[in-house]
Amino acid sequence: MKKKLTLIKVGGQIVEEPETLKALLADFSKIEGCKVLVHGGGRAATRIASQLGIESKMVNGRRVTDAPMLDVVTMVYGGLVNKKIVAGLQSLGVNALGLTGADMNYMRSDKRPVKEVDYGFVGDVKKVNSDLLADLISKGIVPVLAPLTHDGKGNMLNTNADTIAGEAAKALAMHFDVTLMFCFEKKGVLRDANDEESVIPLITKADFEKYVADGTVQGGMIPKLENAFDALQSGVKEVIITRSDEIGKNSGTTIVG
Amino acid sequence: MKKKLTLIKVGGQIVEEPETLKALLADFSKIEGCKVLVHGGGRAATRIASQLGIESKMVNGRRVTDAPMLDVVTMVYGGLVNKKIVAGLQSLGVNALGLTGADMNYMRSDKRPVKEVDYGFVGDVKKVNSDLLADLISKGIVPVLAPLTHDGKGNMLNTNADTIAGEAAKALAMHFDVTLMFCFEKKGVLRDANDEESVIPLITKADFEKYVADGTVQGGMIPKLENAFDALQSGVKEVIITRSDEIGKNSGTTIVG
Repeated sequence: MKKKLTLIKVGGQIVEEPETLKALLADFSKIEGCKVLVHGGGRAATRIASQLGIESKMVNGRRVTDAPMLDVVTMVYGGLVNKKIVAGLQSLGVNALGLTGADMNYMRSDKRPVKEVDYGFVGDVKKVNSDLLADLISKGIVPVLAPLTHDGKGNMLNTNADTIAGEAAKALAMHFDVTLMFCFEKKGVLRDANDEESVIPLITKADFEKYVADGTVQGGMIPKLENAFDALQSGVKEVIITRSDEIGKNSGTTIVG
Repeated sequence: MKKKLTLIKVGGQIVEEPETLKALLADFSKIEGCKVLVHGGGRAATRIASQLGIESKMVNGRRVTDAPMLDVVTMVYGGLVNKKIVAGLQSLGVNALGLTGADMNYMRSDKRPVKEVDYGFVGDVKKVNSDLLADLISKGIVPVLAPLTHDGKGNMLNTNADTIAGEAAKALAMHFDVTLMFCFEKKGVLRDANDEESVIPLITKADFEKYVADGTVQGGMIPKLENAFDALQSGVKEVIITRSDEIGKNSGTTIVG
């Protein structure tokens, strides 16, 4: 029987504020069994880029990553944010290991081809090598994954943290019973966007299609849920959408295949 | 019989210029057997700190690391410099893994006590956990060590790269026959400071004492050699002092116990 593994993705805002980071790490440290944390860091990157006189340019909600911006995200995601999380977890007795996709070549990507938009040094994931990662996890190591990959030709590439989480979860599903948890600003998928407490506890594929048809689920939540079903089809056991301060509470929306 | 391991420390300047970095990584990739790379990054840290309006303050050649500077070295050493090296090595088929002391808790330090000078967030190494590191190295992983440790209380600490190299070499000597190589700007310990070709090929402890007495060895080379003898006493098999473009050439000064 496979061991259970919980892979949690948290956005940038949570990990960039000392208070929310502290609360998150305390909650995360209490999760039993094997676990992985995936983090963003976009706000810190924007702030430091701005201090360095580098303008942040976003297209369709995604960062355009030219060479100076690649240096910024490499140092902010891979250094500043990642190592603060790792040091914080170590202080709580969690044996964290910060990784980018280049480290142990665990996630390789290709630079996104230029179509209507040139996103620059942004990577689309091509290959996940999960054997060594799984081995380390089995030995008690807790990987902390920064939203960075590499192209195998010497370049780091900026890769969306949701994508990192999904791809890592799918690859680790060969070794573990994976629960993939996406944290965002709401407590889950809401029946009524104006009512924080109207969380839908369980969504099947049939529910999803109905909710899209009747407009209950719309906008940015549609690709999030499509990603969730994609992960489930690739062997991930369950996907939970919740708020970061709820990760230990068995709440949120559970997506099942 | 223990396997041979080569641990090479290179300074910041080499790894910060694309051309010298490329040459170094090519030479390093050709070294056979188990290996580890330890890097500096002080010039890049000074440059980026300056761009962020943070002044670099040095005392006795060591960086004073206040809170804003700790953020800078964490992102520059642990992110920018480290991940460029890791991605570069991956492109050469070397399965590199970038680490700070916080990662897998491999090197813990204590914040240096304030005496005449308050160095700020600078760590003196207290404990090296080399078992997991040695296990990864045996599996073909090549650790790339940034000059950062952690205090176990949630703080990253700035730690001299020579110290990281020496402490890692001593701890890994339990698992491997370690050759520790310090690269600096000269081809080795010189008999005549003005003659680049006057490298002394071999220095024993007795030689060292003689050279210090007669003035052949002086200044910053004395603590370097003292560190070398300390490493040898702690089980490191040999220490070589050389220039980074000579690492594959069996040249430089070899220090023996």
